[in-house]
Amino acid sequence: MSSIFTAIIKGEIPCYKVAEDEHYFAFLDINPVQIGHTLVIPKKEVDVLFEMDDETYNGLFSFSKRVAAAIKKSFDCNRVGMSVVGLEVPHAHIHLMPISSLDDMNFFKAKKVLSKEELSSIAHQIAENFI
Amino acid sequence: MSSIFTAIIKGEIPCYKVAEDEHYFAFLDINPVQIGHTLVIPKKEVDVLFEMDDETYNGLFSFSKRVAAAIKKSFDCNRVGMSVVGLEVPHAHIHLMPISSLDDMNFFKAKKVLSKEELSSIAHQIAENFI
Repeated sequence: MSSIFTAIIKGEIPCYKVAEDEHYFAFLDINPVQIGHTLVIPKKEVDVLFEMDDETYNGLFSFSKRVAAAIKKSFDCNRVGMSVVGLEVPHAHIHLMPISSLDDMNFFKAKKVLSKEELSSIAHQIAENFI
Repeated sequence: MSSIFTAIIKGEIPCYKVAEDEHYFAFLDINPVQIGHTLVIPKKEVDVLFEMDDETYNGLFSFSKRVAAAIKKSFDCNRVGMSVVGLEVPHAHIHLMPISSLDDMNFFKAKKVLSKEELSSIAHQIAENFI
């Protein structure tokens, strides 16, 4: 069975897309730790980040660097934080989010609740800054 | 003034070294979130991860993949988690740690307290598995 992320890539499940190329895809986390919280994934379905083949792995981080630059440009923040956990969805994904304090990356606090309009607007803003 | 991490690389401040090559360096966090918590840094002193030149950035993630494999081999864990925050030391560093639950990456809980002997033994174990 394909992962929920593969279903998102295929458009079977809707998402707030931020960026896409031939091999990678970025979209908003709909339960964001921080406004602008984005997930970056390879289209190839691999569970464990560090067990990915080198080409997919290196490409994923190059793509993430471009997404991070777009996030940085879109928000008033000190920098963009990154986290990879991966215990819930067996499809490797990089969390990126604008941060100005460690608490902005606190996965244990209550998630932000945003409307569809807000999520759509945020995705559009980051997408506009993606180069 | 050079960063505390540059002083560690130069050997001016002692550390529990895990791995090193010409351009990168890995050592234990002495206030670990989790046993095996390792920091991977470029020898080149750059503050913001995503503002690093592509060559240094790509090399850092390639090196981190090898360190992560050594950590995975050294501990009974589900996988290796990764985090980059970077608000405290202006020298980009990747946190790697063995995890089996999200709480294993909780930067907000009390840090582990380990003796010098324990830290030395952990560093030695990871170093032995680094290829």
